[in-house]
Amino acid sequence: MRRCALGLDFGTESARAVLVDVTTGEEVGSAVHAYESGVIDDRLPETGEPLPPDWALQDPDDYWRALEAIVPAALRAAAISAEAVIGIGVDFTACTLIPTRADGTPLCCDPELRKQPHAWPKLWKHHGAQPQAERINRLAAERGERFLARYGGKTSSEWLFAKALEILEAAPAIYDRAERLIDAGDWLVWQLTGREARSACQAGYKALWSRTEGYPSREFLAALHPRLATIVEEKLATEIYPVGARAGELTPAAAARLGLRPGIPVGVAIIDAHAAVPAAGIAEPGKMLLILGTSGCHLLLGREERSFPGLCGVVQDGILPGFFGYEAGQPATGDLLAWQTRAAVPPEYHDEAARRGVSIYRVLEERAAALRPGECGLLALDWWNGNRSILMDADLAGVLIGLTLETRAEEIYRALIEATAFGTRAIVENFERHGCPVQELYACGGIAEKNPLLMQIYADVLGRPIHRVRSGQACAVGAAILGAVAAGSAGGGYDRLLDAAAAMGGVEAGGFSPDPAAHDRYTALYGEWLRLHDYFGRGENPVLKRLRAWRAGRRPEEGS
Amino acid sequence: MRRCALGLDFGTESARAVLVDVTTGEEVGSAVHAYESGVIDDRLPETGEPLPPDWALQDPDDYWRALEAIVPAALRAAAISAEAVIGIGVDFTACTLIPTRADGTPLCCDPELRKQPHAWPKLWKHHGAQPQAERINRLAAERGERFLARYGGKTSSEWLFAKALEILEAAPAIYDRAERLIDAGDWLVWQLTGREARSACQAGYKALWSRTEGYPSREFLAALHPRLATIVEEKLATEIYPVGARAGELTPAAAARLGLRPGIPVGVAIIDAHAAVPAAGIAEPGKMLLILGTSGCHLLLGREERSFPGLCGVVQDGILPGFFGYEAGQPATGDLLAWQTRAAVPPEYHDEAARRGVSIYRVLEERAAALRPGECGLLALDWWNGNRSILMDADLAGVLIGLTLETRAEEIYRALIEATAFGTRAIVENFERHGCPVQELYACGGIAEKNPLLMQIYADVLGRPIHRVRSGQACAVGAAILGAVAAGSAGGGYDRLLDAAAAMGGVEAGGFSPDPAAHDRYTALYGEWLRLHDYFGRGENPVLKRLRAWRAGRRPEEGS
Repeated sequence: MRRCALGLDFGTESARAVLVDVTTGEEVGSAVHAYESGVIDDRLPETGEPLPPDWALQDPDDYWRALEAIVPAALRAAAISAEAVIGIGVDFTACTLIPTRADGTPLCCDPELRKQPHAWPKLWKHHGAQPQAERINRLAAERGERFLARYGGKTSSEWLFAKALEILEAAPAIYDRAERLIDAGDWLVWQLTGREARSACQAGYKALWSRTEGYPSREFLAALHPRLATIVEEKLATEIYPVGARAGELTPAAAARLGLRPGIPVGVAIIDAHAAVPAAGIAEPGKMLLILGTSGCHLLLGREERSFPGLCGVVQDGILPGFFGYEAGQPATGDLLAWQTRAAVPPEYHDEAARRGVSIYRVLEERAAALRPGECGLLALDWWNGNRSILMDADLAGVLIGLTLETRAEEIYRALIEATAFGTRAIVENFERHGCPVQELYACGGIAEKNPLLMQIYADVLGRPIHRVRSGQACAVGAAILGAVAAGSAGGGYDRLLDAAAAMGGVEAGGFSPDPAAHDRYTALYGEWLRLHDYFGRGENPVLKRLRAWRAGRRPEEGS
Repeated sequence: MRRCALGLDFGTESARAVLVDVTTGEEVGSAVHAYESGVIDDRLPETGEPLPPDWALQDPDDYWRALEAIVPAALRAAAISAEAVIGIGVDFTACTLIPTRADGTPLCCDPELRKQPHAWPKLWKHHGAQPQAERINRLAAERGERFLARYGGKTSSEWLFAKALEILEAAPAIYDRAERLIDAGDWLVWQLTGREARSACQAGYKALWSRTEGYPSREFLAALHPRLATIVEEKLATEIYPVGARAGELTPAAAARLGLRPGIPVGVAIIDAHAAVPAAGIAEPGKMLLILGTSGCHLLLGREERSFPGLCGVVQDGILPGFFGYEAGQPATGDLLAWQTRAAVPPEYHDEAARRGVSIYRVLEERAAALRPGECGLLALDWWNGNRSILMDADLAGVLIGLTLETRAEEIYRALIEATAFGTRAIVENFERHGCPVQELYACGGIAEKNPLLMQIYADVLGRPIHRVRSGQACAVGAAILGAVAAGSAGGGYDRLLDAAAAMGGVEAGGFSPDPAAHDRYTALYGEWLRLHDYFGRGENPVLKRLRAWRAGRRPEEGS
């Protein structure tokens, strides 16, 4: 009988299930279900109360409704029986923070608390905790907290402590009622297994935890807010499991709801992006995975822990057990191109797309592909959504130079792609400068699949071949790989993640090879790009930060 | 009986006649006629031979056809008899260079020479002589030629000697056949009066001539090309007339073709833009006229001759007799906004314009007007078409910074307007720094008439009220004023241009007053703008020039 692992992939707008044959790696069936309430960023469903502009909530009932839809649908699509499923893995957006009771029930499921916005799960991209994040960063820098270096010197408003502090300060009664504050991936594993087994991936990348140092100290937390001093003991968990470990087994209740057999091993959760690493077949240092979607994420394994500026995080056991997982990022990749199609592409391009029945991206891509490197005469800094790596400065903004009266939309489109490629090159060079060599590049994500021009430009700019991950649903396949490892060889899976990744993950044949002449031209342009990057990004001329202040309605200080 | 002066205004696409009552300044009638061949930039009409991309020719027969159309039509529109016309003034684009026989017949009217592209009039914006202009600039700098300082250190490919040298080198036989090389305005006056009376305006701004030093020396011209040594004696004219002088009287033949009486005094020609100065009623130093069209032109009178970087020219008697006329310029004003509407405005804006039956500019302007200064968070350098004043560098290119994922088209539109306003402020401050104070601002031209938001932003950025010239056809009215002066008081006109301008020119009531709070905000942003201006424009980072080279298909030298 075919043996399959089930990967459950919980994204921003929808959840996906995939069944992967653990021997052949074949994706035998999958299903997707969009969350009924999607991203709740306008009004609270219960009361219609308007939400502030930087808010983003989700409804945990949507997660269960999605589960009940996708698991049976994937089984039907695969035409296999539930008996064939040997293990389950889970990936989830993070830090999507759910305040729950001690038994895991989300507070917002309580009819009384449902009217309280802070009782709801805060989606990863909820940015209401920006002031709290800034205070965390300031205090940590003042106190010389060692954890800061693991995150490139700056933590994010999207992470656990900022969100927890936001709840504590804005709704202390909700904070009190929350017996657990838990990442949604860990919550889902708890729902499936009845056991709270928190993941080193979520704890390490999003909750300032490390294997050797644990969470931030009680002193630090107390200095932040007196009542935060006890958050670790009261609301978090101190036993943290490496990715690849077994969290528990499917409870009879959950099995009944999903149409599966009870007792199936369930793996520790992983952040959605990070799940793509095993799906790429990567199981050793030197192979960087680029996850190219609305934003860009760069993951690399290392044997040692190093801290340097520009890291979003380095976490032991956070991606693959036994390795340090390094993460870097660019806050706008696909979003940058989407901005252009929305705000700066004239009607005739849209008309052509409509006439030919293709996307506006296709029209721009075809025209941009006819240009040689440098021919557009443009250079851009891809900071439309700020900079994460390597400058870690959310207040930077985009730059576009070299415009002429002849500049056309496809030239801007190409310049924007080149800008993100240069940004990736800066990240790769930053890793290498700090003792983390990058020998091979892998890519996955919506943009990697849909935009071959972008892939070729990345290969040309970086001067390295880029392998594209075979699966079009890499995160879900990565989750399934973790399911196969949770099962172990005794359960029909694998004992080592390395072996599961080799059997079930992998890349397409071919890939994208750099053109030496294009690489040479791009290296000259990259020199120009770097000079602009340092001029605008490293304080020589802080005009971009001042323009952001003007935009926000604050007149910047002279000379600030 | 009403006494009227006739202004003849020859623009790039069409010619216009206006009849102005010399006592009241009332515009009693006008007419416009588009040139049949317009701008010839695609193929030579006679042979269909394709023209190089930077070429722009015109057909002199179009000028006569236009004349024969507009003069009778203006008389009809005014419902006055030909007897009422007491003087004629002429303005024309420049340097629009016509190679002619000794009697003024354009070479291209010869059936044999009609097939030779270089026998045709080269319109002001013909840019085929760029290599020649560069050699003129290099040689003049090497030899320390004094004329260079009057033009801010750089002469243009649009001017007479560059175009003459282009003909000489590309078509020496045509150069030999050309017994005169003459600016079209002077040619038209010659056609009307039978007398070649060249204007200090055209000679001074476009042919490197000055009242005290004459044309470039024979030695300089010989060093440029041996056969150019004798161009002044052979093909130009050395008797140069101030603007405001009488060139001659309408010949019987011309009078018959136009339906006017012979003997009407005709004034010396003036460049079209410069004719707007008397139309504004300006007759003294300290009042700067902004001519805002596709490009921007800044004219100011002075009592002394000063030379400083950023001038396009300073010419004694070139605008008003007895004054030095200073000119500065911005190569893209309306063109910058037109670029955006063409290349970077999404369909919904165009749809709204179509639905409401208004222009796309109106839609953008309305939305941009709702923004406070600085609120768009953007800053631009308006160098899409290079920089004329104050950097005199055609190889610069545009810059746009501060972009975010929320940036909308109307924000870019406003930033582009602000960029041209900051550029004008830099020009005004440059004049003042060099001893030419600017007390009052006047504006005319298509953009000044159609774009009140731009006018208000200019007033706010410059911190000065801006008066708008009363006439919507300022250049033509200026030409009519010169016609009234050509007539003199004995002929029913004026002896002094000052008096004619006061009676026949002037500004609208009201105008645009600066808002102090907006001016204050813009002064802070102007500081940011200036810093970028100097960084990208004064050699600190010559990346824009290198990007222009990339665009042109030339890989720039490292470090160049």
